Amino acid sequence: MGGDEVILLNYWMSMFGARVRIALEEKGLNYEYREEDLQNKSPLLLQMNPVHKKIPVLIHNGKPICESNIIVQYIDEFWNDKAPLLPSDPYEKAQARFWADYIDKKLYDSGGKITWYKNKEDAEEGKKELLEIFKALEGALGDKPYFGGENFGYVDISLIGFYMRFHAYETIANFSIEAERPKLMAWVKRCLERKSVAKSLSDPKTVYETVLKFRKIRGLD
Amino acid sequence: MGGDEVILLNYWMSMFGARVRIALEEKGLNYEYREEDLQNKSPLLLQMNPVHKKIPVLIHNGKPICESNIIVQYIDEFWNDKAPLLPSDPYEKAQARFWADYIDKKLYDSGGKITWYKNKEDAEEGKKELLEIFKALEGALGDKPYFGGENFGYVDISLIGFYMRFHAYETIANFSIEAERPKLMAWVKRCLERKSVAKSLSDPKTVYETVLKFRKIRGLD
Repeated sequence: MGGDEVILLNYWMSMFGARVRIALEEKGLNYEYREEDLQNKSPLLLQMNPVHKKIPVLIHNGKPICESNIIVQYIDEFWNDKAPLLPSDPYEKAQARFWADYIDKKLYDSGGKITWYKNKEDAEEGKKELLEIFKALEGALGDKPYFGGENFGYVDISLIGFYMRFHAYETIANFSIEAERPKLMAWVKRCLERKSVAKSLSDPKTVYETVLKFRKIRGLD
Repeated sequence: MGGDEVILLNYWMSMFGARVRIALEEKGLNYEYREEDLQNKSPLLLQMNPVHKKIPVLIHNGKPICESNIIVQYIDEFWNDKAPLLPSDPYEKAQARFWADYIDKKLYDSGGKITWYKNKEDAEEGKKELLEIFKALEGALGDKPYFGGENFGYVDISLIGFYMRFHAYETIANFSIEAERPKLMAWVKRCLERKSVAKSLSDPKTVYETVLKFRKIRGLD
């Protein structure tokens, strides 16, 4: 499959885009990275994702795949000869999908209450929710090195991109994730040791500064 | 696999529960149906789905699987010897997941603006959104009998349960889905001819009357 043309439409600080980058790195695939300006989306993005008009989009031999968790599953199923990301057992696979879905349904919105807070109460509520979510995730992780067990995989990929926002969450809502959820932070550090992850995540401090810049643009500060 | 114990925790008018019922019927599986009182959830439901505390839950040989689309994928992957629900091709599979995800992200909320409207504007907004969603879905259906092509499958299962709400949407927001989206309604009728679907859906008029009853209980009427 060396002749495959793989293009990723992305935005550098997206936790969803990070999922796709990590999955591609885990599979050892070469791909063309194209940065999108979300204030001025490219005709290609609008053509490839006319329904949601959002990044990330993976374009594989001219055909688009949208929605990050769906893209990661696609990558795992198409390039199935190495580095499996999802378990093969149907029950374990369902559990992995459950937690990735949980992350999607909960984390973005609760985190957004902190980064885009209008008043102190929003940020406080977001912080409480975040700590509850992290508690549930620590429960799912248990004493395993990764969510799926010994091997880095689908749930890890779904979650680790949010690390890019951790510094913003902590600084804005004035708390320490490491102090409150040490087990989760130990897992973060384990993930960051992987080349696939380290290469794919943007610097949390730059992300924080960019959040502040956007807060000004949106009239929130 | 004749020795499998399969229990479904459900609530009769849930479009999400309907997905699981249809998938089980399509696979020709025997299962025990247990109706939940959502105002007084059973200890079993709370034990089996401690995270979301929601129906449907499939309990397969004592182990729970939660979230309807995840359950349907599990059913398809575990009982993979007949009636495939998802396509085997990775790209087609990604497309099926995309549309099932689209239905989950859009339809419930827009429909809820109609059924649980507070003022006329809510219902009007819900109706507009619903017609846009149905338009997009008609585009995805194209001229095929089912979303996946010749065979009834995953996207059909994700969507058809919402038919139980159609009468409520139409009566409350005063419009005809058949008049506005005839292609979608032709697809609905095609699905209703299947025994798996006919057996699994509750009567839309009874659902509508129950919606009205809940509106009274919630102080909306």
